[in-house]
Amino acid sequence: MNAEDSGMEELATEKEAEESHRQDSVNLLTFILLLTLTILTIWLFKHRRVRFLHETGLAMIYGLLVGVILRYGIPSTSYHHKTPPSCSLKEGPVSTLLLNVSGKFFEYTLKGEINSHEIHNVEQNDMLRKVTFDPEVFFNILLPPIIFHAGYSLKKRHFFRNLGSIITYAFLGTAISCFVIGNLMYGVVKLMQAIGQLTDKFYYTDCLFFGAVISATDPVTVLAIFNELHADADLYALLFGESVMNDAVAIVLSSSIVAYQPSGANTHTFDAAAFFKSVGVFLGIFSGSFAMGAVTGVGTALISFQFPFTKLHCFPLLETALFFLMSWSTFLLAEACGFTGVVAVLFCGITQAHYTHNNLSEESTKRTKQLFEVLHFLAENFIFSYMGLALFTFQNHVFSPIFILGAFLAIFIGRACNIYPLSFLLNLGRRHKIRGNIQHMMMFAGLRGAMAFALAIRDTATYARQMMFTTTLLIVFFTVWVFGGGTTPMLSWLHIRVGVDPDQDLQQCGDSFQVLQGDGAQGEGLSKTKQESAWLFRLWYTFDHNYLKPMLTHSGPPLTTTLPACCGPLARCLTSPQAYENQEPIPDNDSDLILNDGDLTLSYGDTAITANGASGVGGADGTSRTAGGAPRWSLNGRRSGSTSEEALERELDTRDQDLISRGTRLVFPIEDHA
Amino acid sequence: MNAEDSGMEELATEKEAEESHRQDSVNLLTFILLLTLTILTIWLFKHRRVRFLHETGLAMIYGLLVGVILRYGIPSTSYHHKTPPSCSLKEGPVSTLLLNVSGKFFEYTLKGEINSHEIHNVEQNDMLRKVTFDPEVFFNILLPPIIFHAGYSLKKRHFFRNLGSIITYAFLGTAISCFVIGNLMYGVVKLMQAIGQLTDKFYYTDCLFFGAVISATDPVTVLAIFNELHADADLYALLFGESVMNDAVAIVLSSSIVAYQPSGANTHTFDAAAFFKSVGVFLGIFSGSFAMGAVTGVGTALISFQFPFTKLHCFPLLETALFFLMSWSTFLLAEACGFTGVVAVLFCGITQAHYTHNNLSEESTKRTKQLFEVLHFLAENFIFSYMGLALFTFQNHVFSPIFILGAFLAIFIGRACNIYPLSFLLNLGRRHKIRGNIQHMMMFAGLRGAMAFALAIRDTATYARQMMFTTTLLIVFFTVWVFGGGTTPMLSWLHIRVGVDPDQDLQQCGDSFQVLQGDGAQGEGLSKTKQESAWLFRLWYTFDHNYLKPMLTHSGPPLTTTLPACCGPLARCLTSPQAYENQEPIPDNDSDLILNDGDLTLSYGDTAITANGASGVGGADGTSRTAGGAPRWSLNGRRSGSTSEEALERELDTRDQDLISRGTRLVFPIEDHA
Repeated sequence: MNAEDSGMEELATEKEAEESHRQDSVNLLTFILLLTLTILTIWLFKHRRVRFLHETGLAMIYGLLVGVILRYGIPSTSYHHKTPPSCSLKEGPVSTLLLNVSGKFFEYTLKGEINSHEIHNVEQNDMLRKVTFDPEVFFNILLPPIIFHAGYSLKKRHFFRNLGSIITYAFLGTAISCFVIGNLMYGVVKLMQAIGQLTDKFYYTDCLFFGAVISATDPVTVLAIFNELHADADLYALLFGESVMNDAVAIVLSSSIVAYQPSGANTHTFDAAAFFKSVGVFLGIFSGSFAMGAVTGVGTALISFQFPFTKLHCFPLLETALFFLMSWSTFLLAEACGFTGVVAVLFCGITQAHYTHNNLSEESTKRTKQLFEVLHFLAENFIFSYMGLALFTFQNHVFSPIFILGAFLAIFIGRACNIYPLSFLLNLGRRHKIRGNIQHMMMFAGLRGAMAFALAIRDTATYARQMMFTTTLLIVFFTVWVFGGGTTPMLSWLHIRVGVDPDQDLQQCGDSFQVLQGDGAQGEGLSKTKQESAWLFRLWYTFDHNYLKPMLTHSGPPLTTTLPACCGPLARCLTSPQAYENQEPIPDNDSDLILNDGDLTLSYGDTAITANGASGVGGADGTSRTAGGAPRWSLNGRRSGSTSEEALERELDTRDQDLISRGTRLVFPIEDHA
Repeated sequence: MNAEDSGMEELATEKEAEESHRQDSVNLLTFILLLTLTILTIWLFKHRRVRFLHETGLAMIYGLLVGVILRYGIPSTSYHHKTPPSCSLKEGPVSTLLLNVSGKFFEYTLKGEINSHEIHNVEQNDMLRKVTFDPEVFFNILLPPIIFHAGYSLKKRHFFRNLGSIITYAFLGTAISCFVIGNLMYGVVKLMQAIGQLTDKFYYTDCLFFGAVISATDPVTVLAIFNELHADADLYALLFGESVMNDAVAIVLSSSIVAYQPSGANTHTFDAAAFFKSVGVFLGIFSGSFAMGAVTGVGTALISFQFPFTKLHCFPLLETALFFLMSWSTFLLAEACGFTGVVAVLFCGITQAHYTHNNLSEESTKRTKQLFEVLHFLAENFIFSYMGLALFTFQNHVFSPIFILGAFLAIFIGRACNIYPLSFLLNLGRRHKIRGNIQHMMMFAGLRGAMAFALAIRDTATYARQMMFTTTLLIVFFTVWVFGGGTTPMLSWLHIRVGVDPDQDLQQCGDSFQVLQGDGAQGEGLSKTKQESAWLFRLWYTFDHNYLKPMLTHSGPPLTTTLPACCGPLARCLTSPQAYENQEPIPDNDSDLILNDGDLTLSYGDTAITANGASGVGGADGTSRTAGGAPRWSLNGRRSGSTSEEALERELDTRDQDLISRGTRLVFPIEDHA
């Protein structure tokens, strides 16, 4: 190899690197332009009040179009047309391979198996493959903000009111759905084997895995419409709570099913030991992740805000960055420990919203919320446009009409076995029954979305997994477009009351775009469901109010008054100086747990419509609700000066009041006293 | 291969994939924790008013520590200890290799060359190599927000006042520095060859490339301190402007030098044709990137805000997301077209700040600014902690004491050849001379940072490039720690006046953490330098005010009044309805170009200190400045109601006024009329 050769070779390598860099830029650019296009169209839709297509559905359509163009429209642009050299080994594929070129060693990493008929267009497919990028990105980068935002923006009042039902649907329901779908699909697979439609292995565990993957619902489209129409708040809470929790359940279920690997030759038949191992793994992973999320959330509150120098609020940028990093590190820490990051980050989000959020400066509160909103929005739309793209650019699709048809049937049956029996059981215990039309709506709102996709794309190595991936993709498309688009007709067909839509044309900006922000306070019987879990509530509430809040935030009574005398020194050390100032009456931001009015007003402040809309309806009644008549509203719209006891009492008082008095109660104090 | 084998193999692959996923999480977690640690320490430093160590320096120190731990502290944790199998080929390394395992084909991609003595610990080094990730990430993900933020937060007033000097330093100065350093280093290389210290090829072009890489200054540490101390505003503008522009120049210079590849056997000697080709490439890339950035910036303003339905401001989330995506796509588009994304995104930022920013809703303006602030902050600290980490975890360091020593000398000489002769030449034309102490300070502030590092890490394939990378890393460490830390003593030693530090202890939050936000209005002779480029200014200003602003924003006179009569229909079509409303007097947000007071107030509003601090000093004088006495301040703190002619006149009036009257002029109208 003389100097000239080496120079030319360097040049060639440089050119190739440049070409590859350009290709990378083009790929990223494709996605960015897709997102831009989506945003511009959503904006148009919002402006025209088009409700039949949500932005996620739109993102998928654009993704599909671009996928078609990439696949069929662009001539193969490979820069050198030779088939890459190959070498033979007897061993199975290894992750790292060394290449010896005249004494120099080069390292190669495994990219994946390719079909023998595709060897000659490896280079041609390079672009398509590059667009189809690493599933790790979905898990480590795109999912955390989406899940965290779900936890962070969860409306605590309705969530906690319906906690029992939500947990039932999410845990029991998802497990039922998973097993029903798994078994039905096993039947389909057997049928396919019988008629010779199956060309490779497909085990029972694969079917169960599919059941777990496809049981993760994601009714983001439906919820956006609910939010806009101010549909029944309990329905909203049930659906949102269920979808948030069942993502967590589905991901842990799927890992447990993967862990259900019977050892020895006797593979893939039922094995009691392995089954119980799976159940153990499920419980272990779930509780571990839950604990990790909660602990990190509490830890953030504790570490950053019990420091002797709590001037962090002077640096909102630092605060925001810290908050962001801590939340993300929860996810990664859980993944690194073998737990499930999604579950951890979800509970971290809930904890952060409850404790840390209160400690942030007003500026940071807004910043943080907006930052996560933007991240959530971008990540979600990115995933959905990627899904559209993947249908055409992904290389290893296995389309099997029977399997797909079977899967569509199975998910309906699975969803029905989840909703109807559990609703019946729940109604036995609930004071405020889940009515038939609500059940039908929950059945209808079982869309599949980002989580199902992310779980399915995670492993597409085997034939069975590839078939599942393709099927999942089609199910997501179908449910988002058809069910998402049919939400508004379905609501009116089922006679589900939607709130009074405030006269939006009076305001310059009719819609707020904070998808999961608005609370939807309308709908009757808001508080009727409270009693069912009140005993659990009171216990937790007292503990939280007396011990956790004072320790982790600057609100609540000082620990010195709530802890027994023997813990005096510890209590003094853990109580922040500010807590003493507000000793009597105890200031209380907690009412959100029970009453959550402050929270509501905050979200009203954001959307800036509903409050006005409601204020014209029941004024006198509203004013009479401001118990005591004193100005109760602090500058940032939070309720201050009411004790938790008052809050509880008022809660009991207003239990049977309908929404309008509630709506005005929120608004009038501002108008009266400001 | 029977079923059992295949099952076991699948299991092994799954385990390996899981292990790899966990490893990925740990790596990301390492960086996140590093950043968290940095933030916590910065917070402490801010609180204690420690100024000798900037957050970037701190991030590097933590990075170094973690690098040492990763390198030496952790026992090799590889999960299988065998040397990977190797196969031989006669051809050179190819990017894609096929592996034939009993009829199945697997695809492998090139990772890089490894030394023959490291073959056996390929797996052991896996973790270290994974931590050292793809330089593409720096270029496509981390640099854009940093550069965009620089352009977006550029203070137009001082920048444009010193535009001539800044361009001279950035273009001519960087070119001088590059050639001086390149030639000096070529001498060093020759010396090393003579004494046998050089084991591989090192061409003249490599030396020039090093000159280009190391000429990109990044005085972020210095500027943060200037900002905090309110040092001379012209010095700030000169340094900031130079560093922003010379990043762009350095990156284009380095690409041109790479393009200077003489063809044929006669490699790496001087070739006039290739030289002129390089110059052509330089000019082409720079002007192309500049045009692309400006066009995209203008395009964003035009497309999104001349639409017939300009209700985008009702959806701040959409606005922010769109703004973010458009800015990023500029970068990627430029890279995809073979231009330089950094230059494009820089000018895109400047254009966006000038036009698009005015069209955003108030909410979006804040959101966008904060989003880019957080992104910039995270990206910058990430790069600096990565630098610290890379010193120990990067596999191919080439430490050459002579080269390093030579490089340190060369960068000082190069910087001196840039600053002193050019300052002398500039002083011949400038009315407000660049004094000696300012020149010394500029000399001193020639730190190297993120851009030099990103350029150096981009290509570490050859021996020469590896040596450059190591040297660059050490230069960055040294300059950031020593020069960054020595800024405050240097300022006082050079008798550079720093502004009155407002009595910070009176406020609860003394410091604002918006590093490049505060304007630093203090310092005398603010406006004296204006005349030098006034003629160019007036031309541009008139054009901008009469044609561009009305077309791209809702401010300025309607086009129908400024365009000649023949263009009537076009003018009517391009003018937004709002423009007619403000026909007389012409509302004007442009004064920022010349006076920039509105801008100043905005930034004062952000920091919320200086305005108060200054308002106590010269009240009477201040009030007299509010020409006309009418309330001039719109709700969002922007100046409205003054015509551009007024602005120009006032500018000439106040040319010799010192800072205090300027400071109060900004504050009093609010206090008087609100």
